[in-house]
Amino acid sequence: MGLLVVGSLALDTIITPFDKVEDALGGSATYISIAASYFVGLVKLVAVIGSDFPEKYISLLEEHNVDLEGMKIEQGKTFRWGGKYHYDLNVRDTLFTELNVFESFNPIIPENFRKSKYVCLGNIDPVLQLKVLEQMSDPQFVVCDTMNYWIEGKRDDLLKLLEQVHVLIINDSEARLLANEPNLIKASRMIRDLGPQSLIIKKGEHGAMLFTDDTIFSAPAYPMEIIIDPTGAGDTFAGGFTGYLFKTRDLSPNNLKCAVIYGSSMASFCVEKFSTEGIENLSYLKIQDRYREFLNISRIDETIPA
Amino acid sequence: MGLLVVGSLALDTIITPFDKVEDALGGSATYISIAASYFVGLVKLVAVIGSDFPEKYISLLEEHNVDLEGMKIEQGKTFRWGGKYHYDLNVRDTLFTELNVFESFNPIIPENFRKSKYVCLGNIDPVLQLKVLEQMSDPQFVVCDTMNYWIEGKRDDLLKLLEQVHVLIINDSEARLLANEPNLIKASRMIRDLGPQSLIIKKGEHGAMLFTDDTIFSAPAYPMEIIIDPTGAGDTFAGGFTGYLFKTRDLSPNNLKCAVIYGSSMASFCVEKFSTEGIENLSYLKIQDRYREFLNISRIDETIPA
Repeated sequence: MGLLVVGSLALDTIITPFDKVEDALGGSATYISIAASYFVGLVKLVAVIGSDFPEKYISLLEEHNVDLEGMKIEQGKTFRWGGKYHYDLNVRDTLFTELNVFESFNPIIPENFRKSKYVCLGNIDPVLQLKVLEQMSDPQFVVCDTMNYWIEGKRDDLLKLLEQVHVLIINDSEARLLANEPNLIKASRMIRDLGPQSLIIKKGEHGAMLFTDDTIFSAPAYPMEIIIDPTGAGDTFAGGFTGYLFKTRDLSPNNLKCAVIYGSSMASFCVEKFSTEGIENLSYLKIQDRYREFLNISRIDETIPA
Repeated sequence: MGLLVVGSLALDTIITPFDKVEDALGGSATYISIAASYFVGLVKLVAVIGSDFPEKYISLLEEHNVDLEGMKIEQGKTFRWGGKYHYDLNVRDTLFTELNVFESFNPIIPENFRKSKYVCLGNIDPVLQLKVLEQMSDPQFVVCDTMNYWIEGKRDDLLKLLEQVHVLIINDSEARLLANEPNLIKASRMIRDLGPQSLIIKKGEHGAMLFTDDTIFSAPAYPMEIIIDPTGAGDTFAGGFTGYLFKTRDLSPNNLKCAVIYGSSMASFCVEKFSTEGIENLSYLKIQDRYREFLNISRIDETIPA
């Protein structure tokens, strides 16, 4: 059983107007796994690293109950990414992308991972995401992330993948691009017609929207005064969202809403520090406190005056 | 008593990718008054029109219980504004602004309007907004709108005005400009330090935020598939918000939240049709239905799992 996570492990160089880190722990699967670890007994990770991947990062993943049987170590350098954030932190430039060993990544799912019912596919080539699903014996709940690059460059593969996805998590510009429709409500219906029962549209500082059944749910953003590093917030959202659903085994629309708030809570911790530092030392109690704070932001005592 | 509304009456030319109207009823005071009329027995309007202002628009205001004693008719042409919306309707270009009789607008508050406790100042020159307040005997609750043009061009007057304002309603880019701070949470505190007890930041398709006491409230946007004409949505929000508070005479934080949802409800009706058509023929029942729909968008059955 367990939750299967597939994606990238990376070494990130991150520059903000206030600080800089080099070769920090990064990658979609890293953030997803650590975020999910607070909800899931054992996270089954499938990814690739180079021989230069620091031992301390491996230890960190192990401390978060990440099963590394599916983590392949290749001769060569680990995937590296560099990004520079602007003053308002909503805008960033990619400084470099060095695929290195990630270029030939071929996700092989270990035999005892294949029966996992819950799968979280981090943002990688949809061809690889499809390969993962082909190896699974009976995936019951597949959560998937993607990005503009694949929507534009590998649309056919992505469309094939979406037929097998239960929840797609993308941001607003990606949703508009995927549906070729500026109105997000229309776009959401068009995307759900492609396969996913549920769609989550992340809107950064404006929160997130969940579309499921005939329900539209709007989740607020956490009012953050200080954002240190937005890197990995989306992956962390996906990890918290999927992890909470794995924990509760309740896929009702209302519990999906709760999961959106848990995902948002995890993402709000993520951006408070550089790299994965914001989500390394949490407790479930602290996460629940943040969850309650989130609920308060949109709480209203309902009164209909005469 | 009654609610005093001061602002512009205008004739708007509006071009969208789908349709066009010329010399349609417009202006901040128009939208505010009509929206507020569903909550308020008598709206006391102070504005100026030219001798060309169509009789049918005067009748429309009268049908909505707008007291026109403070509406001055000057020889000359009425204020005219033209705007063209882009395909995604979030972006618009101003085609022309012909101030006409509005150029010499000097708001004189009729004697029996001066005791109004509730005042809604539509978006006009802060010098004029100040003049209005000077004539009031004891304004208890002043709601005020403004825009980039005044924030940049008449900052000192605006700052003087803000000391006397209870609720400022602006959009996110205006908030950032006014506080000179990109983070909206920080900006909200800085703006409230300038005078307003409460601040509402409108975020268009992302909803609105209310900052009051130590409360931050996030209101969702109504999921609109078809937006015909966004003109006047912000003014309509202000009219619904202020009108609801006037009706209930309850300025508690929770009731301010309700008022934000009523304002949002009114704005969602506004954009469904051109000009004021979307808010001309509403009923209080219809408004309450929309209010309930709004509450559902962010409703969640709260469960904290063990």
